[in-house]
Amino acid sequence: MATAQLTAHELIAKHRPTLDQALEAIRTRAYWSPHPEHPKAYGENGSLDAAAGKAAFDALLGNRLDLGQAGTDDWVGGEVSPYGIELGVEYPHADIDQLLPAMKAGQREWRDAGAEMRAVVCLEILKRISDRTHEFAHAVMHTSGQAFMMAFQAGGPHAQDRGLEAVAYAYVEQVRTPDTAEWTKPQGKRDPLALNKQFTPVPRGIALLIGCNTFPTWNGYPGLFASLATGNAVLVKPHPRAVLPLALTVQAARQVLAEAGFDPNLVALAAERPDEGIAKTLALRPEIRIIDYTGSTVFGDWLEANARQAQVHTEKAGVNTVIVDSTDNYKGMLSNLAFSLSLYSGQMCTTPQNLLVPRDGIRTDEGPKTYDEVVADLSRAVDGLLGDDARANALLGAIVNPDVKARLEAAAGLGEVALASREVANPEFPDAVVRTPVIVKLDGAKPDDEAAYMSECFGPVSFAVAVDSAAHAVELLRRTVREKGAMTVGAYTTDDEVEQAVQEACLEEAAQLSLNLTGGVYVNQTAAFSDFHGSGGNPAANSALTDGAFVANRFRVVEVRREA
Amino acid sequence: MATAQLTAHELIAKHRPTLDQALEAIRTRAYWSPHPEHPKAYGENGSLDAAAGKAAFDALLGNRLDLGQAGTDDWVGGEVSPYGIELGVEYPHADIDQLLPAMKAGQREWRDAGAEMRAVVCLEILKRISDRTHEFAHAVMHTSGQAFMMAFQAGGPHAQDRGLEAVAYAYVEQVRTPDTAEWTKPQGKRDPLALNKQFTPVPRGIALLIGCNTFPTWNGYPGLFASLATGNAVLVKPHPRAVLPLALTVQAARQVLAEAGFDPNLVALAAERPDEGIAKTLALRPEIRIIDYTGSTVFGDWLEANARQAQVHTEKAGVNTVIVDSTDNYKGMLSNLAFSLSLYSGQMCTTPQNLLVPRDGIRTDEGPKTYDEVVADLSRAVDGLLGDDARANALLGAIVNPDVKARLEAAAGLGEVALASREVANPEFPDAVVRTPVIVKLDGAKPDDEAAYMSECFGPVSFAVAVDSAAHAVELLRRTVREKGAMTVGAYTTDDEVEQAVQEACLEEAAQLSLNLTGGVYVNQTAAFSDFHGSGGNPAANSALTDGAFVANRFRVVEVRREA
Repeated sequence: MATAQLTAHELIAKHRPTLDQALEAIRTRAYWSPHPEHPKAYGENGSLDAAAGKAAFDALLGNRLDLGQAGTDDWVGGEVSPYGIELGVEYPHADIDQLLPAMKAGQREWRDAGAEMRAVVCLEILKRISDRTHEFAHAVMHTSGQAFMMAFQAGGPHAQDRGLEAVAYAYVEQVRTPDTAEWTKPQGKRDPLALNKQFTPVPRGIALLIGCNTFPTWNGYPGLFASLATGNAVLVKPHPRAVLPLALTVQAARQVLAEAGFDPNLVALAAERPDEGIAKTLALRPEIRIIDYTGSTVFGDWLEANARQAQVHTEKAGVNTVIVDSTDNYKGMLSNLAFSLSLYSGQMCTTPQNLLVPRDGIRTDEGPKTYDEVVADLSRAVDGLLGDDARANALLGAIVNPDVKARLEAAAGLGEVALASREVANPEFPDAVVRTPVIVKLDGAKPDDEAAYMSECFGPVSFAVAVDSAAHAVELLRRTVREKGAMTVGAYTTDDEVEQAVQEACLEEAAQLSLNLTGGVYVNQTAAFSDFHGSGGNPAANSALTDGAFVANRFRVVEVRREA
Repeated sequence: MATAQLTAHELIAKHRPTLDQALEAIRTRAYWSPHPEHPKAYGENGSLDAAAGKAAFDALLGNRLDLGQAGTDDWVGGEVSPYGIELGVEYPHADIDQLLPAMKAGQREWRDAGAEMRAVVCLEILKRISDRTHEFAHAVMHTSGQAFMMAFQAGGPHAQDRGLEAVAYAYVEQVRTPDTAEWTKPQGKRDPLALNKQFTPVPRGIALLIGCNTFPTWNGYPGLFASLATGNAVLVKPHPRAVLPLALTVQAARQVLAEAGFDPNLVALAAERPDEGIAKTLALRPEIRIIDYTGSTVFGDWLEANARQAQVHTEKAGVNTVIVDSTDNYKGMLSNLAFSLSLYSGQMCTTPQNLLVPRDGIRTDEGPKTYDEVVADLSRAVDGLLGDDARANALLGAIVNPDVKARLEAAAGLGEVALASREVANPEFPDAVVRTPVIVKLDGAKPDDEAAYMSECFGPVSFAVAVDSAAHAVELLRRTVREKGAMTVGAYTTDDEVEQAVQEACLEEAAQLSLNLTGGVYVNQTAAFSDFHGSGGNPAANSALTDGAFVANRFRVVEVRREA
């Protein structure tokens, strides 16, 4: 092992204050972030500014990204941006039988480094990533199809926040038990019994991160950093269409690990050949003891049922509901909802799908509105928001893959179209597939419509479901969450009883609820250190980002006791 | 719901100081217990003394224990004490389709009571149980076969400690997230974004406790109290041979819940008819969202594989190893080991089974000892310890069931018998089956012997396995823990290198290690608030008693956010 260029002393001096702030933030859950959201905040103290970040990204294109990994037997690539360009980056393809043993080689030193050292090494990795936020923004944009500003924020500072949050939870969980204890038990007149005890957090083994196409960093960092901070090695298996952001992450992690005197193979990339389906193979390897996965319900359920040797954390699909019962800010409600439906073309696991509106209409500060008026006004609000092509492109991004486009096109056949999807031209990237959301009217009393609104239709598709009453809406909400899961629930009501009923349904079905959002916070957004992403208590996800349960079983505590 | 006789104010005033001490104890892991170990400590402040406890137990015999449970359709019983007496107690048999809905009826009030109120209600339940420790001691003795003093201590104060420990972990886990937060995010020159957030710990549903024959209270209380304290209802399915201690526990819980104004059906008993096998049925019910189980590996594995709707915590079988490499206190080692092998006739999940001794002998403070000498001296130490029948009865207790007796009898055929088991007469209970342990010599280099020492032989059976060297012993230890699991590992060595190697094996395989115990602490004993019971990281158990992971997934946190 090389001499460490980064000492424990330096890393602790540099990062302990940030760790302490993160620990305080997860206790108070007040707003906090050390990662600036504004692109102009970068360019000093070692961070790349916009031009340098773009240049760094451009330099990656068409080249081989050699991570220096053990067991590299080949090179694979082939990502095509949803914006149309071919990335042409080649990644190491691993001989798993060589790579996995190599990943275990450095685990003892990593374990013995202790929780604080692991935390500050993770914070240094996040710092290196933060410095390259502009570069990552392009990488996220050209794999997920997010518009630049969203790719910058959600793929950069917000993802880094989620990673830091996981490090904070992992650290505090490990130090709940002291390193040592003296135990002295009185024995009446006899000498007391006395033991010295040592407690060591030990990792489970190698963790597997299975990345997703739409939020490779945001959804990937919590599991990656939670596992690494608790002493595990981490094998990163990115989505084949979104390799670059996680490959750069692995690169940063390996650099920092090596500089701090640890084995860089503690973090490695498992890129795959087309149709290799390596996730299934990896998930069943006995060395893999933890899995973090974001993606389809089918594969998530398969992992939970089959990867029995591992702790499996999944975020799968759900059907998100917004109940529209009444409001004292009709305009605010419409513009808030219009934004929620449009952001990243509805390709967020948190985007509302079913808007439940009483068929007899709703009460508003602008007087009563019929079901048809509400749906028409919301459609107009979306149209208004996306009327300007430049703004539409900046909000919508690109459709991430042909499946989403096909679902969008099929949605128009599911019911009466209240708002048709339209194509938006992207002058910078003419091959980008950019579409505005469709809103389809369905009837909650018609059994034929149920198949549509009770299935996840991932993408820019929403259903305005006519319901009999607020009570009917709450009942449908409850059933949807119980049977299909939900990452988010929204509700608009000025009625205390309805509010209580919605709240009770969410408490009983374990769904995260946003009430009466009319301003600049949207139901599909959660903030690290304060909001939980998912609850882990309904079928959409078996974990929440991030809580104690997300980290507590990634390590075990081994006790060694001796007579004092 | 009846008016509460016990108010939150009273319960908090009474129990908060104890809760705070428990919270401090799990942080420092120093010795602490609020539950006296000495039988004479009981009889004041509402607790039953020895005579009153015995009288209370006697009054139960031959009678129906009516818990006033919903859905009682029949009465079942039939326990026969390992000491030979028929208990003749009848318990309610439940119509599950009536009982489970009734258990859900009170969950909302229990959830809304909050973490602190739930904790102090649990502490009041433990106080009522503690007051009846003498009564419980007889109930545990006459179901588990433990000798009275062990039934008193392990079934009484030590079990209550483990229950309290679980309450403390559950409480602190729930209050890690505040009830409310104000979140204000600066927006440069614009108004900040501001949200009010509420966080509510919500239960998963109904928890199922599947009790065991040997330690109904000690192994049952952690899961029971962890689930109850996190807002779940708890259905207690005792082992058919050990119903009484858990039925009395359910009785105490129901009384306190009712007095505190909660629905007593939040805790209920599921006693079964002979061969009804109700655990399998219950474990797959959708209402059951948490399972705690202690027992065979076969059923534990079945639960983990099949009860997919639930969080499953299992303590299964393992093969516990003691490495004997060298000692500077040969007599102390022998007497400590002799006690460990004899206590409760080796019927503890923590009793050592395989004693690995180098075939070339060991170094001791009394000079070198050959393998044969070590085994002979240990056999003599056991003989000496159990030479007096009164003391033998007090240590051994009774053989819990015919399977253990059969295994003991078969063990003599597995190899050369170094110490034969002998029958001990119990003058008070002539029908009790009391046996001293057998020690059988095996050879770690003989493939034929491997089947014996690599399987759990639950009961008073130990194998003195000759190994080639300390390194061979460590290798065999490592393989045993990895393949079979272990609740405990012991080692005797004065050699730093051997100690390091054993310690490293335990850290890598996640096994709890006791080093060089020669006094009054034994490898098979763990103390609540300080020692972890199991690690949750090897095949013997998927959970440790008690840590954050044991409680963190019994509830979820639901967030409700509104614009400020």
